[in-house]
Amino acid sequence: MLTKAIGASRSVRLAMFVMAGLLATASAQAQTDPLPSWNNGAAKQAVMSFVKEITDSASANFVKPEDRIATFDQDGTLWTEHPLYAQAMFALDRIGKLAPQHPEWKEKDPFRSVIAGDKAAMARFTEEDWMKIVAATHTGMSTEVFQGIVSEWLAKAKAPRFDRAYTELIYQPMLEVMQYLRANGFKTYIVTGGGQEFVRVYSEKVYGVPPEQVVGSSIVTKYEDASGAPVLMREPKVFFIDDGPGKPVGINLFIGKRPLAAFGNSTGDAQMLRWTQAGSGARLMMLVLHDDAKREYAYGPAKGLPDTHVGIFSEALMTEAEKKGWAVISMKDDWKRVFAFEQ
Amino acid sequence: MLTKAIGASRSVRLAMFVMAGLLATASAQAQTDPLPSWNNGAAKQAVMSFVKEITDSASANFVKPEDRIATFDQDGTLWTEHPLYAQAMFALDRIGKLAPQHPEWKEKDPFRSVIAGDKAAMARFTEEDWMKIVAATHTGMSTEVFQGIVSEWLAKAKAPRFDRAYTELIYQPMLEVMQYLRANGFKTYIVTGGGQEFVRVYSEKVYGVPPEQVVGSSIVTKYEDASGAPVLMREPKVFFIDDGPGKPVGINLFIGKRPLAAFGNSTGDAQMLRWTQAGSGARLMMLVLHDDAKREYAYGPAKGLPDTHVGIFSEALMTEAEKKGWAVISMKDDWKRVFAFEQ
Repeated sequence: MLTKAIGASRSVRLAMFVMAGLLATASAQAQTDPLPSWNNGAAKQAVMSFVKEITDSASANFVKPEDRIATFDQDGTLWTEHPLYAQAMFALDRIGKLAPQHPEWKEKDPFRSVIAGDKAAMARFTEEDWMKIVAATHTGMSTEVFQGIVSEWLAKAKAPRFDRAYTELIYQPMLEVMQYLRANGFKTYIVTGGGQEFVRVYSEKVYGVPPEQVVGSSIVTKYEDASGAPVLMREPKVFFIDDGPGKPVGINLFIGKRPLAAFGNSTGDAQMLRWTQAGSGARLMMLVLHDDAKREYAYGPAKGLPDTHVGIFSEALMTEAEKKGWAVISMKDDWKRVFAFEQ
Repeated sequence: MLTKAIGASRSVRLAMFVMAGLLATASAQAQTDPLPSWNNGAAKQAVMSFVKEITDSASANFVKPEDRIATFDQDGTLWTEHPLYAQAMFALDRIGKLAPQHPEWKEKDPFRSVIAGDKAAMARFTEEDWMKIVAATHTGMSTEVFQGIVSEWLAKAKAPRFDRAYTELIYQPMLEVMQYLRANGFKTYIVTGGGQEFVRVYSEKVYGVPPEQVVGSSIVTKYEDASGAPVLMREPKVFFIDDGPGKPVGINLFIGKRPLAAFGNSTGDAQMLRWTQAGSGARLMMLVLHDDAKREYAYGPAKGLPDTHVGIFSEALMTEAEKKGWAVISMKDDWKRVFAFEQ
């Protein structure tokens, strides 16, 4: 009898334990919001519905995991791009650091303006000026040396206004979208107009995106092994510009599959979104609108927002988004918080 | 009693069943050779030891799964490249098929020689001649149309000597290495001098390598959406040559990580192997030597094998391999069978 009583008691306890476990799981499932930094609204709903549709094996729009590709622009879509792209800030800082070795720069533009801190002149820099700055700061060393320089800069540099590391200025709601997509079998790619080798330095740590999933602009690299120690030297020559029409080209070149979902924030992302939408089945196209001067920055010129020439969201892009059903994310209204460091 | 007997009988049967299962599993584990098409020898041993070293968490050379990258040349390393690369055969076939639409080709080289089947003239084709043939057969259409043409050709074309589809001329021992590496957490990439978009048509089906893991040569593609339907048009202009020094460049561009293992068969693979070996820890560099005229083809000119100018394994490459400890795979001696269709 004693044995039986213990047996019964054990069974009851076991049953209660199992029940408690089941209840806890059910409760956790009901309560776990994969996008906790998003306010409930059309943008959040668009993400949730899309993922449900794609992953539901009973849905006509079900896609097998190996074809679940999502592409994200970086500057202004995943992290802050104002007042200037982080990589441009890096280049300007490098000019300052390298200036003592280049006395001739003091009298030679665009370097002269950078060294003098002449913001008005810098605001007028042409593509050619920027290429000279990129050539002087991004080339003439091996890929490994370059990545070391970037890594060192990122560890120390502080972004204007926030006085925080650039890698802290990641949009928490977008990180949640990336994580949510990956949890649902997606491969998440960064498809950036910025430098591929620059972004690779921190992409894994910051976004959980490994180097092989970073598509970006690049310069020519040259293999050299005359010394017996092979290196890839960075040459002052553009290889590929991953912006505007270059984004679908880069996506096809590096991935060879059409994205199911694409995220951007400016006119340079329009072609990527068109390319994504032109595929069959359910697709998700989203654009971040920077309408939050309080928590980040406000710029357009769409919706009457200031025209700042960095990360342009034009009226034409807004019209296209509305016409084609691309979801526009209002930073102000759709995001409960912008950065992880906020309370 | 009856119940008890049935109970006992059921228990005994269950126990026997479980035991049989355990024994079968143990036996299967002891007997499962991941490389059954390889003869026991130094080459097979090199693969096995390398994988053991890299995956053993107690080893100083342990590498975490996300950094386990292996790169494979294709032509002559994964499939037959003689008497001519499959993609070149495709191009020549296309010239024949397109000839009726180009009456001017009858009097214009290199097309004239191809249409006339003038093998002596074709053997003398320069790089420039080949570029004209590539431009005429690989460009002027969208990527999707091109892949459709390749797919259709592959379904019908037969390789010389074997009278089988090109995709049947895959080296079974190399497929086993790819599968064995993947089973041990590796990402396997194809790094080919051949056309990236060509190889992507069959890489997943034939090698288990998805499009995003095919690094190859490419031409310029141009995004167009004037009609409202976005397309990527293939232009008659070289974008990237993934051969020789281009292989480390391509690996860095597309993967951004240095391979732990690299497999090739010709002088065009030397730089990839050097780049691989220049990393720290355990590395595996292997070269396939075609010394099997009976089952496939024999060519060098290393080891006194015939010099055929397609897939050159030079004396210098052999010397480098010996000096640097790269494993040379003798097709004749190391492979129990070459193709899956052999008995």
